[in-house]
Amino acid sequence: MVKERIERVKGTRDLLPEDMAKRRWVFERIREVFEVYGFKEILTPTFEYTKLFQLRSGEEVVKQLYAFKDKGGRDISLRPDLTSSVARLFVNKFQNVPKPVKWYYITNMFRYEEPQSGRLREFWQAGVELIGSANIEADAEVIALMIESYLSTGLKDFTVNIGDRVLLDEFAKMLGVEDDIGLMRLIDKKDKMSREDFIAALKDFGLSDEAVEKVLFLIELKGKPDEILPKAYELFKSDKAKEELKKIEELFELLKAYGVYDYALIDFGIARGFDYYTSIVFEAIAPNDLGIGSIGGGGRYDNLIEVFGGKPTPATGFAIGIERLIPILESKGLLPSFRLSPDVFVVYIGKELEVKAKAIEITQALRKAGIKAEYDLQGRKLRKALEYADKLEIPVVVILGKRDLAEGKATIRDMATGEQKSVAIEKIAKEVKEMLG
Amino acid sequence: MVKERIERVKGTRDLLPEDMAKRRWVFERIREVFEVYGFKEILTPTFEYTKLFQLRSGEEVVKQLYAFKDKGGRDISLRPDLTSSVARLFVNKFQNVPKPVKWYYITNMFRYEEPQSGRLREFWQAGVELIGSANIEADAEVIALMIESYLSTGLKDFTVNIGDRVLLDEFAKMLGVEDDIGLMRLIDKKDKMSREDFIAALKDFGLSDEAVEKVLFLIELKGKPDEILPKAYELFKSDKAKEELKKIEELFELLKAYGVYDYALIDFGIARGFDYYTSIVFEAIAPNDLGIGSIGGGGRYDNLIEVFGGKPTPATGFAIGIERLIPILESKGLLPSFRLSPDVFVVYIGKELEVKAKAIEITQALRKAGIKAEYDLQGRKLRKALEYADKLEIPVVVILGKRDLAEGKATIRDMATGEQKSVAIEKIAKEVKEMLG
Repeated sequence: MVKERIERVKGTRDLLPEDMAKRRWVFERIREVFEVYGFKEILTPTFEYTKLFQLRSGEEVVKQLYAFKDKGGRDISLRPDLTSSVARLFVNKFQNVPKPVKWYYITNMFRYEEPQSGRLREFWQAGVELIGSANIEADAEVIALMIESYLSTGLKDFTVNIGDRVLLDEFAKMLGVEDDIGLMRLIDKKDKMSREDFIAALKDFGLSDEAVEKVLFLIELKGKPDEILPKAYELFKSDKAKEELKKIEELFELLKAYGVYDYALIDFGIARGFDYYTSIVFEAIAPNDLGIGSIGGGGRYDNLIEVFGGKPTPATGFAIGIERLIPILESKGLLPSFRLSPDVFVVYIGKELEVKAKAIEITQALRKAGIKAEYDLQGRKLRKALEYADKLEIPVVVILGKRDLAEGKATIRDMATGEQKSVAIEKIAKEVKEMLG
Repeated sequence: MVKERIERVKGTRDLLPEDMAKRRWVFERIREVFEVYGFKEILTPTFEYTKLFQLRSGEEVVKQLYAFKDKGGRDISLRPDLTSSVARLFVNKFQNVPKPVKWYYITNMFRYEEPQSGRLREFWQAGVELIGSANIEADAEVIALMIESYLSTGLKDFTVNIGDRVLLDEFAKMLGVEDDIGLMRLIDKKDKMSREDFIAALKDFGLSDEAVEKVLFLIELKGKPDEILPKAYELFKSDKAKEELKKIEELFELLKAYGVYDYALIDFGIARGFDYYTSIVFEAIAPNDLGIGSIGGGGRYDNLIEVFGGKPTPATGFAIGIERLIPILESKGLLPSFRLSPDVFVVYIGKELEVKAKAIEITQALRKAGIKAEYDLQGRKLRKALEYADKLEIPVVVILGKRDLAEGKATIRDMATGEQKSVAIEKIAKEVKEMLG
């Protein structure tokens, strides 16, 4: 027999019962908010044709694709995000339904990132896509929903920082830069380098000293609208830019109506990694000592549906990074603790089928009453069984001996106090339920 | 701009909101049963080193692996099942915890099957693994749990058919067949061919006429234990076989205690596709006109942990095929119907920010009251908005005009009756809640 110890693949992790319990708690909080906002759950396949992701996903993402050929010679890739797949699904089947289409998902994604970044190669996101509305109301709706999603988990110390691709485009034009995407990518990386390195990178990119100054001014445009918008109206002179600033002004008014204004900021230095964003983009940041950057992000992508062969259709959405959110919630003590051990352990004494069968019947009666009950599958001796229950912190043990059985009774032991009492078998479920409170 | 219509990959499917609602309902029913039995949820990575699945997964499964090299040159595969990954996890981290370990999972798997089979290449399973008990009680526990899982979904017309690899081994010895795995694979395929073809295949395999007769007798050993076991004791003469038959006798006694005896049958013609099974194997069958075979299966795998480099550790488990179960539940009308549209649609008249903001505030108040509410993100005219609400069968519309607003009121319209009434804004949530009942 071959014997070989095999480890899991680098960059992946096993989720143990406690991880899963936390995750489900977070998912359920977020899901409730998504649903009350009228979003409906969907799920697309884990892999798609590679070209779906190449068409408009941004250089970084394409570089990090888990791409391979299947046995039929097809070029397929594990999804790096869900937005491309959702756009594909919309084009294939949903172009003619009443708008907007409001979808959400909670699922896993894959990126082959450099191991030194410490990021997982398989990770989870909870996100929404709102397809078919070009109105700023739609941007407000998804930003408000993102904020309420974090609030639902108990998180309070966070902001959603809002930038705008149209303004960055106008800014590039203002500087006479033709490679606007290149400039955006550079601006997006500003937080990953020192100020000096950033200035050097801007100069390498071909910017004049004056243009560099303007970029440094732009990335300082971060704060509440009443403070930032007047400065922005100073910087931007084109009609297109002014129209966009007016939209942002309205966006913040709407966020007030949503009751989430306190959590929203302007940050015109935000561009975001995906090439498909077209105007409003945003990122959620929660201050932490864990080295975790954004805990979610999103934006408007008004061209993607068309790129995938659909009728021109505006859209916006966001995704929350679960592996970034959970450690922050944990570090702040916001996650409840979960009892995973059974509530009751049923032990029987002797090897007779009759006794075993009665232990099973009692266990089943407890389970039917909604109590997490186990009986001793290992057939341990009483002392060992009690040790086991003690180790797992199981609060109640039911002990079934031959004499008990003859009298139609069993012994219930409170493991905390050591108190025991003899109870008629048919009353055990009721009695245990009371003990567990 | 490149425009290209991209389809989803063959053998995969998109899950739409109604599919997801059904699926979640089924998952929740099964999950409740898994948890009350004391199983804890885990999740392993979507891909593992290919050799993990090659080591002991059975010819068919290895042939159907989604295997590829990642960017680091590693040979990895999408998981075709979870049992191998769970055994790997157990060996890596859980060998020294108190036994048994009881884990469950609800997740997706991947197999590159021939398209003509109509099977999906990505599919979902809900399953459990019980590691660390060699006792027949453990087999009874997982079989009872499987039966109760189906019952929890409302399914009643099904059986779990139980076979035994030890007996098949003894049977192969009896016939003087050395390639016992080959014979098992052949027996496993009996239902996929005619009786004549099966007999021909047995002869091709090298069996004498007498041996063929014995195989035909064996595969007829299907039914309740009181009917089948006497025949089996006639057929099998070795001590090992008799000991195994005694275990099966006890298994059915235990299933009586579990209260699930009515759903269990003996079927000694069952072998199951995975090579890692060692004794008790079982399959769930629900009669249907949809061409769906087994809706789940499992068995004991006492060697797998050792094959993966662990200490010898007995284990058993099962998986329920979600894509097989759901269509059967659906065809029997066992799935509830799900309302996915919002409960309330809030419409505002006019373009003023003030009116829009009030519509948002009302919508938010409804959502805070747990009501699935939307406001008109498209800014439709009243007639169009009502048409939209009608089309989506939204039962209540809140209409907000300028005059209403001046009076601190809005109009609530019952879409079924067309009745309208004017209500103070702060009372809308309460009023709507009453209307929705």
